Amino acid sequence: MLWFESDYTVGAHPAVMDALVRSNAENLPSYGADPYTLRAAEKIRAACGGEGEVFLLTGGTQTNMLVIGSVLRAHEGVIAAETGHIASHEAGAIEHAGHKVLTLPHREGKLSADAVKRYLEDFYADPVYTHMVHPGMVYISQPTEYGTLYSLAELKALREVCDRWSIPLYADGARLGYALACPENDVSMADMARLCDAFYIGGTKVGALCGEALVFRPGRVPAAFRTYIKQEGALLCKGRLTGVQFDALFTDGLYGEIGRNAISCAAALRGYLSRAGYREHIASPTNQIFVVMPRAKYDSLRKEVAFSFWENLDAENCVVRFVTSWATRPEDVEALGKLL
Amino acid sequence: MLWFESDYTVGAHPAVMDALVRSNAENLPSYGADPYTLRAAEKIRAACGGEGEVFLLTGGTQTNMLVIGSVLRAHEGVIAAETGHIASHEAGAIEHAGHKVLTLPHREGKLSADAVKRYLEDFYADPVYTHMVHPGMVYISQPTEYGTLYSLAELKALREVCDRWSIPLYADGARLGYALACPENDVSMADMARLCDAFYIGGTKVGALCGEALVFRPGRVPAAFRTYIKQEGALLCKGRLTGVQFDALFTDGLYGEIGRNAISCAAALRGYLSRAGYREHIASPTNQIFVVMPRAKYDSLRKEVAFSFWENLDAENCVVRFVTSWATRPEDVEALGKLL
Amino acid sequence: MLWFESDYTVGAHPAVMDALVRSNAENLPSYGADPYTLRAAEKIRAACGGEGEVFLLTGGTQTNMLVIGSVLRAHEGVIAAETGHIASHEAGAIEHAGHKVLTLPHREGKLSADAVKRYLEDFYADPVYTHMVHPGMVYISQPTEYGTLYSLAELKALREVCDRWSIPLYADGARLGYALACPENDVSMADMARLCDAFYIGGTKVGALCGEALVFRPGRVPAAFRTYIKQEGALLCKGRLTGVQFDALFTDGLYGEIGRNAISCAAALRGYLSRAGYREHIASPTNQIFVVMPRAKYDSLRKEVAFSFWENLDAENCVVRFVTSWATRPEDVEALGKLL
Amino acid sequence: MLWFESDYTVGAHPAVMDALVRSNAENLPSYGADPYTLRAAEKIRAACGGEGEVFLLTGGTQTNMLVIGSVLRAHEGVIAAETGHIASHEAGAIEHAGHKVLTLPHREGKLSADAVKRYLEDFYADPVYTHMVHPGMVYISQPTEYGTLYSLAELKALREVCDRWSIPLYADGARLGYALACPENDVSMADMARLCDAFYIGGTKVGALCGEALVFRPGRVPAAFRTYIKQEGALLCKGRLTGVQFDALFTDGLYGEIGRNAISCAAALRGYLSRAGYREHIASPTNQIFVVMPRAKYDSLRKEVAFSFWENLDAENCVVRFVTSWATRPEDVEALGKLL
Repeated sequence: MLWFESDYTVGAHPAVMDALVRSNAENLPSYGADPYTLRAAEKIRAACGGEGEVFLLTGGTQTNMLVIGSVLRAHEGVIAAETGHIASHEAGAIEHAGHKVLTLPHREGKLSADAVKRYLEDFYADPVYTHMVHPGMVYISQPTEYGTLYSLAELKALREVCDRWSIPLYADGARLGYALACPENDVSMADMARLCDAFYIGGTKVGALCGEALVFRPGRVPAAFRTYIKQEGALLCKGRLTGVQFDALFTDGLYGEIGRNAISCAAALRGYLSRAGYREHIASPTNQIFVVMPRAKYDSLRKEVAFSFWENLDAENCVVRFVTSWATRPEDVEALGKLL
Repeated sequence: MLWFESDYTVGAHPAVMDALVRSNAENLPSYGADPYTLRAAEKIRAACGGEGEVFLLTGGTQTNMLVIGSVLRAHEGVIAAETGHIASHEAGAIEHAGHKVLTLPHREGKLSADAVKRYLEDFYADPVYTHMVHPGMVYISQPTEYGTLYSLAELKALREVCDRWSIPLYADGARLGYALACPENDVSMADMARLCDAFYIGGTKVGALCGEALVFRPGRVPAAFRTYIKQEGALLCKGRLTGVQFDALFTDGLYGEIGRNAISCAAALRGYLSRAGYREHIASPTNQIFVVMPRAKYDSLRKEVAFSFWENLDAENCVVRFVTSWATRPEDVEALGKLL
Repeated sequence: MLWFESDYTVGAHPAVMDALVRSNAENLPSYGADPYTLRAAEKIRAACGGEGEVFLLTGGTQTNMLVIGSVLRAHEGVIAAETGHIASHEAGAIEHAGHKVLTLPHREGKLSADAVKRYLEDFYADPVYTHMVHPGMVYISQPTEYGTLYSLAELKALREVCDRWSIPLYADGARLGYALACPENDVSMADMARLCDAFYIGGTKVGALCGEALVFRPGRVPAAFRTYIKQEGALLCKGRLTGVQFDALFTDGLYGEIGRNAISCAAALRGYLSRAGYREHIASPTNQIFVVMPRAKYDSLRKEVAFSFWENLDAENCVVRFVTSWATRPEDVEALGKLL
Repeated sequence: MLWFESDYTVGAHPAVMDALVRSNAENLPSYGADPYTLRAAEKIRAACGGEGEVFLLTGGTQTNMLVIGSVLRAHEGVIAAETGHIASHEAGAIEHAGHKVLTLPHREGKLSADAVKRYLEDFYADPVYTHMVHPGMVYISQPTEYGTLYSLAELKALREVCDRWSIPLYADGARLGYALACPENDVSMADMARLCDAFYIGGTKVGALCGEALVFRPGRVPAAFRTYIKQEGALLCKGRLTGVQFDALFTDGLYGEIGRNAISCAAALRGYLSRAGYREHIASPTNQIFVVMPRAKYDSLRKEVAFSFWENLDAENCVVRFVTSWATRPEDVEALGKLL
């Protein structure tokens, strides 16, 4: 079987696993006070331009819920693209935390600064706005659910809108490593750290067994955030589990290397797909490829390749998704290419 | 340094870590649908007498919050000993989930069936009880915060009280492995599964890097519990992380073996302590030993031994805690014995 | 000034106020145990076909929040038209209670049974539905936000869909009195009680100073609902306040009489508007009239008439709303007719 | 029947009811924008020394829940006497809002500044305090559940403790009118407004049909508090209901007059009780009188007098409660006196 189903079907990158094995016998402080966690935070801060407060968590929904739940006040909701992960596939975690997700139409998975601006202007122009959920945060993903990217200009425009209404900008970076490794990308990790009030650097989908590194801009950490993490059942007793992994991911450029392998494999696969006449349903430059495929082809190909059905397009065609990761090998892509 | 500070200062038991390494390269289904997780559940069910529904989670506070938050209705609270973990050291996770912890006095960390019965009788005898939080669950720990054990008779008595008022009984088994391995213990895992509506088998403090196995009695799983886990940010994308670990812990009697090592080391240490004239502050048969120690001795001993200050007793003496684990070696106990 | 702004600008219907005055000096049990409240419940039950459990509350948002918050489990959300009151103008009360409002497109403010059916079919056909908010209730308003009415056939069709998926149907009747008084209406109060799991009979907008009467179908009252009302700060100490009012509203057909006055005034006003050449923006048979008006006319008319600007339609025209109530007199309508 | 059961068995003070009747036919803005509400706020501000922001709500539990729920952050709890209303008889409203009530022992229903100080010192001295609920507010009642009063010195001492740890002080004044009217009292309404970050002036138990006036110190109103009120279902559509009542209560000294009648009747009743040989169980100077009574006497007296059984004291005696109000007449007290 060739695996292109997702970037989380294998375990950790071997270097990450090695680090867990090597440190396993050490007696270490718990709850995130161990030297690996401290070192990981230091390295992440360095990658963010030298500043920021770092918290290691175990998953994306958990991270989104903790940030949004602690930053927003009761009367506030979070603006997101209607395709945003928090708007659909997090089982109502944000509403469970008490907040409405205020959805806006998307453009290839992205929120435009203009759409957000219009929404905010209209909201405060509405005479009964005090009877409505106040927009209190803007949520974006880099890359988006469709693998598309915000350009630096687009990110700056969102920042300006947020500044004008004094609301924080938060970016979900579950697959950030793949954005950073894209030749098309012009947003660095330091840009993320500078332009967002908070964002997270995905580990689970980028080489870790589990783990996301949440970064707050200096001064933006909610009061007693560590207690809040504990209260939400998200504080690992053996904090070393995420500490060791992120320390490894940020050593010797491993995080960048993982991203680049996935992106170069995705580029090669796009070549095969294009030459075989497949059309991209959404043009994504990252490690997720959405193409239109005849249903019959899908049915035969899935016998030898693990990949995802996305949605039906018409009577004969469907949209499918191929995903690459650190574990994808050039020979896997080549083998898939021959089957297309 | 000799380590007796807690049972979570080292990583995973080597056999658990090996299992993670061996399975690392496999492509597996996500979110708990992988064969390791399924196999772990099967083995745990077998250890529970053949029945029960098993969910693997990452930590104790998370597990307590998920069980209590999903089983209780809004108007209900949970009865616990005033020393219960949920009553003090979980940062208000239960209240954050909307429920009051109804605390009762403890006896060596334990709730007596009589005290619970009296509370329930008094509650429903109060003419204004509809203006008060209804007792909707009983929470206990096995072993307790003080390392003490409920006997089978005590557990059955609690069950009877719960049956009479039709409220569920839930047991926190963060250190269950150490209870099971105690010669003094007469409550088997199957007894736990049969007498409690839900309980969890601690992994984090008993040989895993992270992980707790929550077991519901057949028919007691809250509706759509998996969705609720997701909603609370507690569903691991790579469910293999806990699946592989619990599969290993329940293979070839590893969970029992880990417990027995800790208990035999604790017994040896109790011998040294007793011979050196130390008095146990709370008589615990499990892997936590609470003894009275002159403050001066504490100050000198801590230079060579990692162990915990518990509380001041009087002007000259304090209570300290020693904890053993799978990683404690007989020679460590012996070395500590010589320093006492 | 002529008042057509809303049905809540005056106090209580004189007969309601009289009842408050007459009962004022009596010493009565508190928290809803007084004879007025009991009698009101009895009369409402009779109007509902003889069955149902009745709770008196103070406002619509409060009632919606209490019903939805107590009936739904954590993983569930409520289906509503995108124009539903809970979806926009209740300040996120439903999300604050932890639940997502799952909005569907409306047809003149109404949800069609077909749209709900399609949504439910699609939801359970989605392979990742366990990661999404489960539809756990259907919310409608009778009349809707636009003053339109569900026919008996439409209501029955919704009931069938709800039955098929075993989810409750709940109706917001903030202005129910105006629906019942409409010649076009074929849904009786007993139909509401029989076809909905819960619905409320609006008092605040139909002749009371405050108060809504919530009716549950037999057997559908959430456990300990009175305690839940108390917990949400919604239990009046002097329950007589709503008890006396609803007792008066359901004595000698007052509730029906109040509705009929508003509806006959609205019909007369529709005649004047039509003859003056105004077009109804949304054809509503109840006490809210939405018409298209030149902006210049709006600006001049508002000097003598209190009514509401609704929204801009084009460069020259806007949509405005006129509302009638128990307090509207035929001579007011005539006077307004002359100004059109 | 003579009524001494509580201060909420009759309706509104006649002057309050008159005001409702007189204003009933007026067309007024809704949601608290009417002139009565604005005037009431102005008068209350004047009584508070000229400053403060006033919000009118309908009940005490609702007010406590709104203040505590909006002022506290997720990780914070509220310190209260174990006898505090929020700790027992509000059905878990505070926990439902997500916050633990941190109870301390009381002294005649009161919290001492010393006890609070010790609690705060101990909390921050605990090395694991980040795993515990942070004390984020101090809640007191004036008068307390037992009718006792904080002196100005006691209140100032609490304020100092709160200042030192920068946490707000909040006072529940459900029966504030009776405190203010006590000869023993040395805390004015302006003192309350100056020394508390927020407090409320009870109306329901002091002459209104419903209503409490919440006062925040300048600058202490939670952001968008009106939206939060709406979100919690606590914003009256016809805000006039509470506006008119508080306007009346604060006109011509009515609020003070109501309190004085209750207090002078209570004083007279204390005289009768004392002369008849009854002992006060808790010495209260306000309108609640707790005395020890032989059970047999209780059984006979209740045939002619409505009053409350409080608790059993010993085999033969019980504690009972008599309460006076604006509606208690000297002749009622005299009649009761003869029956003692």
